[in-house]
Amino acid sequence: MSVLSTRTTLLLNWYANPYHTPVFVAQRLGFYQDVGIKLAILEPDDPSDVTEIVGLGHVDFGIKAMIHTLAARAKGYQVTSIGTLLDEPPTGLIALKSSGITCFQDIVGKRVGYIGEFGKKIVDDLANRAGIATDSYETVRVGMNLGDALCRDLVDTGIGFSNFQLIELQELRGETVFLRLDQLAGLGCCCFCSIQFIVPERIRQQPERIKAFLIATQRGMAFTTERPEAAFEVLCNAKPQLRTPMYQRIFLHTLPFFSRTLTNVQRDWNKVASYCNHLGIIDSTFDQSNCYSNDYLAASPHTDLEALGG
Amino acid sequence: MSVLSTRTTLLLNWYANPYHTPVFVAQRLGFYQDVGIKLAILEPDDPSDVTEIVGLGHVDFGIKAMIHTLAARAKGYQVTSIGTLLDEPPTGLIALKSSGITCFQDIVGKRVGYIGEFGKKIVDDLANRAGIATDSYETVRVGMNLGDALCRDLVDTGIGFSNFQLIELQELRGETVFLRLDQLAGLGCCCFCSIQFIVPERIRQQPERIKAFLIATQRGMAFTTERPEAAFEVLCNAKPQLRTPMYQRIFLHTLPFFSRTLTNVQRDWNKVASYCNHLGIIDSTFDQSNCYSNDYLAASPHTDLEALGG
Repeated sequence: MSVLSTRTTLLLNWYANPYHTPVFVAQRLGFYQDVGIKLAILEPDDPSDVTEIVGLGHVDFGIKAMIHTLAARAKGYQVTSIGTLLDEPPTGLIALKSSGITCFQDIVGKRVGYIGEFGKKIVDDLANRAGIATDSYETVRVGMNLGDALCRDLVDTGIGFSNFQLIELQELRGETVFLRLDQLAGLGCCCFCSIQFIVPERIRQQPERIKAFLIATQRGMAFTTERPEAAFEVLCNAKPQLRTPMYQRIFLHTLPFFSRTLTNVQRDWNKVASYCNHLGIIDSTFDQSNCYSNDYLAASPHTDLEALGG
Repeated sequence: MSVLSTRTTLLLNWYANPYHTPVFVAQRLGFYQDVGIKLAILEPDDPSDVTEIVGLGHVDFGIKAMIHTLAARAKGYQVTSIGTLLDEPPTGLIALKSSGITCFQDIVGKRVGYIGEFGKKIVDDLANRAGIATDSYETVRVGMNLGDALCRDLVDTGIGFSNFQLIELQELRGETVFLRLDQLAGLGCCCFCSIQFIVPERIRQQPERIKAFLIATQRGMAFTTERPEAAFEVLCNAKPQLRTPMYQRIFLHTLPFFSRTLTNVQRDWNKVASYCNHLGIIDSTFDQSNCYSNDYLAASPHTDLEALGG
């Protein structure tokens, strides 16, 4: 059966946004078509559904954060990261200046928003390490809409990304506070946000299909990083609701974090696995090296030069 | 002797431009001062002077492309890259649409501009590989001012970077042609443009000084990638002549190529060494592993998390 005769599905990790520019570029400029892939891009209503849908093999490809890929394996879903979309952007505690929050200790007596499944564990772990009692603040699951939750006074602060929720809040309300988690001495980091391309086990039986998907995605990535204005325009043509100054700024702030090579970074996997272990999401027998593979990525266009040497 | 009592010099690879944003941010926001470094940033009048000035130890730190660092060692200058400023941006043949150039073969009968010392070797090598006689076109050394040379009709085309000379020409004249060298089948690439921080041998006797320099530069890099608008503003405050739409676009197009970790990438060193070998710039006994070291780079702020696992 030719790959041409199949329909390929990709489930995003969230509603379509500037993170996904390389994918939309590859789709709209026909790069997937060029490799024989007829791609359907799907958006989840609830991001927390993605792991299960991919893990059960209901879609062919998915996008999900590193921490969730590890957690999926720990739950028995045989998902594998075949590449990286976005290297880890800075994560931190986001608040309005008017909240009076200036350091992590200020969460005492406050409502702290978190994104998803592991957010509460992360907030509580940070509090433990900072010597703050976990019953001295309230945690509220706000999903990806932290900016909105802050503006609607549902929370006082929350954990988000400097290239997304922070920009949202700045655009919505102006003055903001951002406390980088990895710069809060002794608090470690909250490094769950490298974004991976993942596949269910059944797709690994079709290595040529994975390789074709990545070749097209790499073309989209190269276009995005080399022609950023044109790439954002392609995204906005696909998703006109993103044609706003706010999303343009989110795009600008995301640009340096795109993984130009799509490579899974061993150091980051080790780090996040270690963190997951610390949080109790995986146990010490867990082998993160099964969670990802760079074997499907095309060699760099430069690689053939190596044969010229000597 | 405390590092506080010394004066540290950094020689840029070219006139101050958006490539150097992380350095200007670290300087203007006091990051170098915070680590006890009183930095003087120097700009070369002729970029081709940089290797010798650094190699002879007349300055403490320099910025120079990977290919020149390899060539410096081959010439007997013991310079070492202690970090990467910018990963390789795409390089290609740049021309105005009106030149009629649409493929590499169209250089026949044309004047081809090149930047510096190795540019002619690279153009001739590409021509050889494409089966074009090297006397069928003219080469003209234009330095870094390819856009100007094209507009003044001194050359018909030339080799430049997609994030710099191409933008210059677009801003100056509108419609342009860009032929990516690594996408011209069989022509390989022209991968001399990863930009490194280099030091002369005498500075390697002062590892703490190198480490301090890199810590401050890493802070400048983090600021640049996390707060790009603010970083560009800092650069423009230092260099008001850069406050133009053209340099803003050069900054935007450079942003995805900044090396966020400053790490020397072994794969790229191997590739460029292989290419230098092919061009006859170094010989087969040359050991590129002496050319760079990641030993001075601070561990990631996340590294201590690894101790938490298990």
